[in-house]
Amino acid sequence: MQPDLSPVMVRDADRRIRPLARRTPMFTSTSVNRAAGVEVHFKCENLQRGGAFKIRGASNLIFSIPAEDLPRGVVAFSSGNHAQAVAIAAEQAGTKATIVMPEDAPRGKLEATRSHGAHIIMYDRHHESREVIADELLKETGATLVPPFDHPLVMAGQGTAALELLEAIPHLEAFIAPIGGGGLLAGCATIAKALNPEIRIFGAEPERANDTFLSLQAKHRVEIPMPDTIADGLRSPKPGALTFPVLQRHVEGVLLVSEEEIRQTVKFLLMRMKLLVEPSGAVAAAAVLHQRLPKDVRSIGVILSGGNLDFEDLAGY
Amino acid sequence: MQPDLSPVMVRDADRRIRPLARRTPMFTSTSVNRAAGVEVHFKCENLQRGGAFKIRGASNLIFSIPAEDLPRGVVAFSSGNHAQAVAIAAEQAGTKATIVMPEDAPRGKLEATRSHGAHIIMYDRHHESREVIADELLKETGATLVPPFDHPLVMAGQGTAALELLEAIPHLEAFIAPIGGGGLLAGCATIAKALNPEIRIFGAEPERANDTFLSLQAKHRVEIPMPDTIADGLRSPKPGALTFPVLQRHVEGVLLVSEEEIRQTVKFLLMRMKLLVEPSGAVAAAAVLHQRLPKDVRSIGVILSGGNLDFEDLAGY
Repeated sequence: MQPDLSPVMVRDADRRIRPLARRTPMFTSTSVNRAAGVEVHFKCENLQRGGAFKIRGASNLIFSIPAEDLPRGVVAFSSGNHAQAVAIAAEQAGTKATIVMPEDAPRGKLEATRSHGAHIIMYDRHHESREVIADELLKETGATLVPPFDHPLVMAGQGTAALELLEAIPHLEAFIAPIGGGGLLAGCATIAKALNPEIRIFGAEPERANDTFLSLQAKHRVEIPMPDTIADGLRSPKPGALTFPVLQRHVEGVLLVSEEEIRQTVKFLLMRMKLLVEPSGAVAAAAVLHQRLPKDVRSIGVILSGGNLDFEDLAGY
Repeated sequence: MQPDLSPVMVRDADRRIRPLARRTPMFTSTSVNRAAGVEVHFKCENLQRGGAFKIRGASNLIFSIPAEDLPRGVVAFSSGNHAQAVAIAAEQAGTKATIVMPEDAPRGKLEATRSHGAHIIMYDRHHESREVIADELLKETGATLVPPFDHPLVMAGQGTAALELLEAIPHLEAFIAPIGGGGLLAGCATIAKALNPEIRIFGAEPERANDTFLSLQAKHRVEIPMPDTIADGLRSPKPGALTFPVLQRHVEGVLLVSEEEIRQTVKFLLMRMKLLVEPSGAVAAAAVLHQRLPKDVRSIGVILSGGNLDFEDLAGY
């Protein structure tokens, strides 16, 4: 039985994941503040090890595996950033990682995962179930599953991003992160509300992957058809069983952005901030830059959650 | 009469240019170290205000102008990054800037300069002399000239980049920066040698803009035909009268890189480090990544000197 996600677990994670996870830099820009109409502090998880926040949760879980279980390895299923994070954390922990990845995952993410010594099993995202494949693997090997979001240790690890942000800039009125399965926002909201009960928590989703937006409206988990969005890290069709109640408790609103707004934001962050942020990683920034926030929010911390994309895709924007 | 460049002038600059100039972040990467065969610390001047190190020198000079001269404004000639820096520093100082820019300067650099309220005068880089145009302007207006490199206050300002780098990582064996007119490397070498007389100083140039390489060999300033390189910030045809003797005193070697190596390095820094660095800004990194350093150098600080380029140019790489 896993303990429930708590602020103490985020603080424990913050100790456990060093020195593998970097304390990523933060940036502000007067031109961003002018465009957004709010004081924006970007937390640069695109500059995190593995190019995304995912190393926080993956290493928190993997570094918690009992010594006697570690030799049987770890298993994960992921479109990319979680895969790479599990590969890096497993390499660091001295165990083997097997990753189940969709055939159409970005090439750079596949290669990076392989470069850390992970064994990759490909599957067809539209016709096969990654859960079934992973279950078989787990039965065969006795390995430990590292879920991409729906696990208290994973959520707690992701929460360290907000802990760093609020330790650096405690006065922030609001916080926003993109929502895929909801692990990042669940962990971040938990520690942010503990540090400052007044802070306002927002999530961001592509219009085309609005499962959490719909679920919060419906007050239960809604499943949508497999989303088709350039934000490939946010294609989960419904919120997690564990992440959703946390989001219900803390999130004031989910802000939606179009594919074109995401693309524009990737270009803006690149050309103005000199930061490469992938579409999934730019969704929260897109919501802020396109003024989806309530007008009375005066300052906000924004997670730029990842920076892994293929050059060919970028060049086509 | 200007005083000679000295370490004390760099320390004075370090106080004078805050808070306009940012203390830029530094990054290391195990994959970079593996590729380069040396411990590499990148100093990210692409994340500097105005997108390049130039704000350091420009603000150091402009913030030193006597109050009675300030209302007559400042004049500069530049292909881009210096232009933008002078515009920003003049705006901050409350005076007007007139910038003489080549017609073929990158569009983004032109627009950014204009956005800070500077008056821009275009000229034909191949048929007109920017010095003649600027001289006429100075006579007409009584404005203060802000040279792009050949001025002790400009060199001293640029040197603050190395001061920050070595305050953060004092043990570095070597330092490298790209050479255009030589102001950045002259300022940086001056303070670096004062902090650590053993430090080894290198410069980097495109093969096609090797004026300082040739000048150091010849032991006098050599002028080459107007260089044709994608590193548009390094197209100066000869070292400065003031920068060259400083480089002669401190620089162990100038490392040359091809256009293709520069282009590859821009892509590498973008896709692996998630940092947008313009071709001129990537030349020192290109020399290190393509292993041009002497084999016994074990650690080096590398200036990524700027990040301003047009998206269309990047997409074509």
